[in-house]
Amino acid sequence: MKGPFNPVEMIRSKRDGHRHSAEEIGQFIERFGAGAVADYQMSAWLMAVFSRGMTDAETVALTHAMLHSGKVLRLPSVTSPKVDKHSTGGVGDKISICLAPLVAACGVAVPMISGRGLGHTGGTLDKLEAIPGYRVQLTARRFERVVRDVGASMIGQSAELAPADRRIYALRDVTATVECIPLIVASILSKKLAEGIDGLVLDVKVGQGAFMKDLKSARALAQALVRVGSAAGKRVVALLTAMEEPIGRTIGNGLETREAIEILRNSGPTDTRELTLTLGAEMLLLGKAERSLPSARARLERALADGSALDRFTRMVKAHGGDVRVVEHPERLANAKAKLPVLARSSGYVSECDAYALGMSGIALGAGRTRADQAVDPSAGIELCVQRGERITRGQPLALIHARSRSLAESQAQHIERAFRIARTKPRARRVVLERIAR
Amino acid sequence: MKGPFNPVEMIRSKRDGHRHSAEEIGQFIERFGAGAVADYQMSAWLMAVFSRGMTDAETVALTHAMLHSGKVLRLPSVTSPKVDKHSTGGVGDKISICLAPLVAACGVAVPMISGRGLGHTGGTLDKLEAIPGYRVQLTARRFERVVRDVGASMIGQSAELAPADRRIYALRDVTATVECIPLIVASILSKKLAEGIDGLVLDVKVGQGAFMKDLKSARALAQALVRVGSAAGKRVVALLTAMEEPIGRTIGNGLETREAIEILRNSGPTDTRELTLTLGAEMLLLGKAERSLPSARARLERALADGSALDRFTRMVKAHGGDVRVVEHPERLANAKAKLPVLARSSGYVSECDAYALGMSGIALGAGRTRADQAVDPSAGIELCVQRGERITRGQPLALIHARSRSLAESQAQHIERAFRIARTKPRARRVVLERIAR
Repeated sequence: MKGPFNPVEMIRSKRDGHRHSAEEIGQFIERFGAGAVADYQMSAWLMAVFSRGMTDAETVALTHAMLHSGKVLRLPSVTSPKVDKHSTGGVGDKISICLAPLVAACGVAVPMISGRGLGHTGGTLDKLEAIPGYRVQLTARRFERVVRDVGASMIGQSAELAPADRRIYALRDVTATVECIPLIVASILSKKLAEGIDGLVLDVKVGQGAFMKDLKSARALAQALVRVGSAAGKRVVALLTAMEEPIGRTIGNGLETREAIEILRNSGPTDTRELTLTLGAEMLLLGKAERSLPSARARLERALADGSALDRFTRMVKAHGGDVRVVEHPERLANAKAKLPVLARSSGYVSECDAYALGMSGIALGAGRTRADQAVDPSAGIELCVQRGERITRGQPLALIHARSRSLAESQAQHIERAFRIARTKPRARRVVLERIAR
Repeated sequence: MKGPFNPVEMIRSKRDGHRHSAEEIGQFIERFGAGAVADYQMSAWLMAVFSRGMTDAETVALTHAMLHSGKVLRLPSVTSPKVDKHSTGGVGDKISICLAPLVAACGVAVPMISGRGLGHTGGTLDKLEAIPGYRVQLTARRFERVVRDVGASMIGQSAELAPADRRIYALRDVTATVECIPLIVASILSKKLAEGIDGLVLDVKVGQGAFMKDLKSARALAQALVRVGSAAGKRVVALLTAMEEPIGRTIGNGLETREAIEILRNSGPTDTRELTLTLGAEMLLLGKAERSLPSARARLERALADGSALDRFTRMVKAHGGDVRVVEHPERLANAKAKLPVLARSSGYVSECDAYALGMSGIALGAGRTRADQAVDPSAGIELCVQRGERITRGQPLALIHARSRSLAESQAQHIERAFRIARTKPRARRVVLERIAR
């Protein structure tokens, strides 16, 4: 591109398969922020990127430009290493809520900025807000203080951080340009890098309940995230984890927060605990708090057993204005008016438990949203009485529906029953972590 | 696509290389007109079409949808066959101005709706407006009456005809989605079909001074125009014509209209006359006024010789409120304040005369525009004293610059001198018509 910056030339260049320089991408995003590049020009460029792709160098430049479209936190008073985790989204994924205080209890700070749920997967913010009083919006200063004093703070994205990403994401959503690896990578990393972290663990979900349905595309995304994050100067590792069944035994905001507290009380479903420990060990390694995954895991297990992880959680909830009584009485989080069991029609082993179908039923019950402006019902959701591989007897409950009315609960009973498949023989166990991708 | 119409699904479908049904395209354009499809969605779709293409059936559907986004003229009182010509744009292309009255004089009606110049090529409306008083905006009723009574009327596009095309074209211009054959075809045909014509002759320019630089892409466009136009039920023929040098001896609105009048006076440059007769013969054939190209050509030559073509022009100018004195005194149209000759630096034969460079100089002199809201100077332009193949002696004028000031004229002298190449030997003559493409 010669001469003064021209958005049409920028679109034409990508349309014709050329590479942008970092300077061009920087100017393009800056002008978009200033209103000199119109939404219709950005969306044409996004579609050109969708069809032509971007190199890692271009993706680094886009990440950098979106990151610097807003405030970048530095957290100078937090002296310990700062590591975060990001998940591409799954059903029943409450891991962040137990993971952040657990890792903090082991000496690595977790300044976590999360999103809300949209579509069939939930969002950490909605789950935190199931705790009465918990404030997800803190000033940058207060956020820094909580991270420094408690070791972990979990807040929502403010308008100040990576505003270009928010506007671009909104456009992608309505122009069929979401499923594009360089754009996904830049979106995830620009938001996470704005937290001022040293390292990032990525949980890339694979399967029918995930955004990436097959191993190949999930691996491509994970590899791109690791390459681009590393090129941006961060320590990054990615795990590909299975998302065929929901994680743990709960779907829905209050129910999931309850389960996360159970994990912190050194209890709870095995798979939720396992994923928490696996991701946590990677975070301790990236934060240089431990030198090996086994030693990191042992340290995390101690923090669960000795109550220090739960203590961090209590302090974090308190620092955010939340009602700490839920820590002692997590059953307070599951107070739906109507509870309806879904009974098994045959006996045998649960061979399938469709995460996507259950996620969609969760939305219908009020636990999620299909439009960004919808409110969620914190008490709504599905409690799984059995998980994949477990035995069930005809007439026994597969699940318990939590809803604000009996008729709403009834409307989902058949859908939920159909999400389970009962087989005569015990299915082979599936691995949770499918691959580990490091630099 | 299942379920209710969803623009995101429409974009996704084209993005992934699928075909749209005619119904889908119809809905998409209709919703765009109603504001339910946003500009940023249209531009993402346009980019997807750019990269994935469209079948002829899709292009017919898009043409149809854009055509019916506004008023479609029927001209019921015009009983003779109605045929128009469209050129993809060249430098010095004043053919329409002499062609329409000439063809009308031979019994085929020409209801011609033209555009303004943008970029290095001129526009017929700007040329007509060089005639004092000529009104390019007529009501549909008045337009029909002029076509009926005079046989030809030349007006500007009204907001009522193919409004979707106008909005889409404006978007394409700023999103690098102009150079896409199905979109070009639908844009050209939707506007021309709104005239209520039976047949259409397309002059597809090829060369450095044209939109299509090479024969292959020009041929692809011409073939698509003929296929889609025929599929839309019209009689269509396309000629590929050379655009390396300007057409004739003038560039600039008043100068070109003067040259068109010279043609109608059975005089003027040979190449302008030749192209007019060639296109005119095709129009008489499509209008079934003649059965063969040679007989059509002979009839056109008679109409130039006996003054009947000039008479039609005079009546058309009068019907549009223009000053008919220019017909007798076309020199009135070349009244620039400053006239500056550009002298040859060597003797020999003119071997090149760069249409693009001269077109750009024309803009700089005020004959054209680089932004749609600029005004043009009707008296500005370039008169060529020699054409390609002619002899020139050192110190003799290559061209005469017409400008509103001497300094403006001087600013272009060197550029214009460099647009000519002088060789020792006479260059081989080039053909004007390169190919004829019929159904």
